[in-house]
Amino acid sequence: MSKGRLEAFSDGVIAVIITIMVLEMKVPHGADTAALAPLVPIFLAYVLSFIMVAIYWNNHHHLFHGVHQVNGATLWANMHLLFWLSLVPFTTGWMDENHFAPVPVAAYGVVLLLCGVAYNILTRVLLAAHGRDSLLARALGSDRKGTISVVIYVAAVGLAFVHAWISLALYAAVALIWLVPDRRFERLLAEHKT
Amino acid sequence: MSKGRLEAFSDGVIAVIITIMVLEMKVPHGADTAALAPLVPIFLAYVLSFIMVAIYWNNHHHLFHGVHQVNGATLWANMHLLFWLSLVPFTTGWMDENHFAPVPVAAYGVVLLLCGVAYNILTRVLLAAHGRDSLLARALGSDRKGTISVVIYVAAVGLAFVHAWISLALYAAVALIWLVPDRRFERLLAEHKT
Amino acid sequence: MSKGRLEAFSDGVIAVIITIMVLEMKVPHGADTAALAPLVPIFLAYVLSFIMVAIYWNNHHHLFHGVHQVNGATLWANMHLLFWLSLVPFTTGWMDENHFAPVPVAAYGVVLLLCGVAYNILTRVLLAAHGRDSLLARALGSDRKGTISVVIYVAAVGLAFVHAWISLALYAAVALIWLVPDRRFERLLAEHKT
Amino acid sequence: MSKGRLEAFSDGVIAVIITIMVLEMKVPHGADTAALAPLVPIFLAYVLSFIMVAIYWNNHHHLFHGVHQVNGATLWANMHLLFWLSLVPFTTGWMDENHFAPVPVAAYGVVLLLCGVAYNILTRVLLAAHGRDSLLARALGSDRKGTISVVIYVAAVGLAFVHAWISLALYAAVALIWLVPDRRFERLLAEHKT
Repeated sequence: MSKGRLEAFSDGVIAVIITIMVLEMKVPHGADTAALAPLVPIFLAYVLSFIMVAIYWNNHHHLFHGVHQVNGATLWANMHLLFWLSLVPFTTGWMDENHFAPVPVAAYGVVLLLCGVAYNILTRVLLAAHGRDSLLARALGSDRKGTISVVIYVAAVGLAFVHAWISLALYAAVALIWLVPDRRFERLLAEHKT
Repeated sequence: MSKGRLEAFSDGVIAVIITIMVLEMKVPHGADTAALAPLVPIFLAYVLSFIMVAIYWNNHHHLFHGVHQVNGATLWANMHLLFWLSLVPFTTGWMDENHFAPVPVAAYGVVLLLCGVAYNILTRVLLAAHGRDSLLARALGSDRKGTISVVIYVAAVGLAFVHAWISLALYAAVALIWLVPDRRFERLLAEHKT
Repeated sequence: MSKGRLEAFSDGVIAVIITIMVLEMKVPHGADTAALAPLVPIFLAYVLSFIMVAIYWNNHHHLFHGVHQVNGATLWANMHLLFWLSLVPFTTGWMDENHFAPVPVAAYGVVLLLCGVAYNILTRVLLAAHGRDSLLARALGSDRKGTISVVIYVAAVGLAFVHAWISLALYAAVALIWLVPDRRFERLLAEHKT
Repeated sequence: MSKGRLEAFSDGVIAVIITIMVLEMKVPHGADTAALAPLVPIFLAYVLSFIMVAIYWNNHHHLFHGVHQVNGATLWANMHLLFWLSLVPFTTGWMDENHFAPVPVAAYGVVLLLCGVAYNILTRVLLAAHGRDSLLARALGSDRKGTISVVIYVAAVGLAFVHAWISLALYAAVALIWLVPDRRFERLLAEHKT
């Protein structure tokens, strides 16, 4: 089976997820800058969630660049990832609604953690189909970033009950880790061509 | 006519359907875990509907893998399927709103039943265009899963008036039948290549 | 310029339009079949609008099948069509909200009329770029269906003030005209191959 | 890395943005033409925002026509553009809600300004990857329209506090500048072929 439709469907779902999040930012009733003040944390949460979903799209794009074949297990591992991503707007909205109270902030982290786990499962399913010596396997390498992210998410979920802003800072830290360009794929693919 | 745009449009519609369903999960007003309790059945209904729509996308993907030509009848049979799928978020929301009362649970089953019928019609339209000896015809075979699903849906719609949870268990059973991988297509396409 | 992205973008916009219309059907609060009764006309309006938008997608698909090149004028003529199509959910919702009062029913017809005009403009822009002797020009022929639709829409908008149901019957009649398969393109393309 | 998925994802996000804006036009409760009167400015704001987003899609389409390779920096520069575009429905809604009060009208201009800046950054990132002598570099030329737009936006944001309609006229002027066809790309690409 070709990977074209799996990519197209994932692009569609992620495009809708990333765009409907902005609907959580309710238009304020006042017409002065003071009316925007309560929106500032909500805007920052939107920025964070937008970046998180964008990172998943970027990684998905890189990952499938090295993929040659997809099977039934790949389709479902991918659907599983899209399922958890689809809950990001919901947990973002719940944090907003409750002014970043501990439980919603922890729930936000749990969903991000499950997205990370789902992405890891997708990677393993693809590796199983491509073999340990494939270009994909070598390009993925040890996946240190993935492991670090999961550890930080677990810590952040717990620390939300100490202070919500610690967790939010940790979520932002994970985003930063991934925003630093990951040249593993590009380097290896370049090697492959030569 | 090529099948590319029919696939792209179906991917787009199904991507929107599967994502707007999560908008039915209204953000709770409380900030503690107790506020999440009434969301648990709504969340489970979302999981079920997500899986149902995902199964249709997967089957659609497999089905069109073996399709070579599309005509006007195919376009309308496909639109008919997308129409009934577009009602899944509505019936999911109605069940949620009414705490799984018998009528909404039966209505949910009626829409799933009509999705199944629409999928069956689409299959027949494609078969008529491809011939009884085509790869597609042999790959589809007897479509036992489709027939069993329709029988279970009819039973579940009736049994909703005995107890809603019987119906919901039957809907989940249909999902399980389809989640078990269907290797007919993959096997036949593999044969074809050799 | 290739036509691929114009088709992909149009598919995306039409997919969102056709799916968000169902959000106009508000989930009823009651849990019995009586709660569905006021939804019946709203459901029928949804069916009509779904079919109307589906007809545009089908025609768009057929039209661009014969197109080889797109230019700036094509992009804007296409955007113009998408603009009027994007108003179909709004006018459908306005009819629903006001129980098919004359003004909203007429407004629904005005938007459909403008969609028809926009489609006609798109056709002319494409013809200007392809030449009067092109396959596209011969396939489009006299566009009798388009002309008849516009005449019916104009009549229906006026007759909404006599009785709304006359207009609705006329809109349904236009849909029926287009649902009857239009084999002009398929025949000519088939000729072309031989 | 091929540009196909970046284009497909951008098409998806822009398609959702351009379509959800119409949801800001709340269905009026009255059933006569008087009920539409307060919607006229809201409709005009929708037209303006639709044209603005459509211009970005058209320019994006033209720009990537000349692009051969995308890298990590391109993906993020593109995400950055999509982020600011995703705020256009929000600022459009805020203007609508407050009858075009100065602050929301200025905020609308700030978001358009940031979209312009993001598009300019995207252009520079692509140029850096393609070289100063590439077809892309020659096609982009001096980007006078981009510079003029930014200057007008800055002026319009300030003048919103004198009178909101001055700003709105200036936003419309920018749209007009871009609606005049920009044949630089088409001409150069045509040259290239000969």
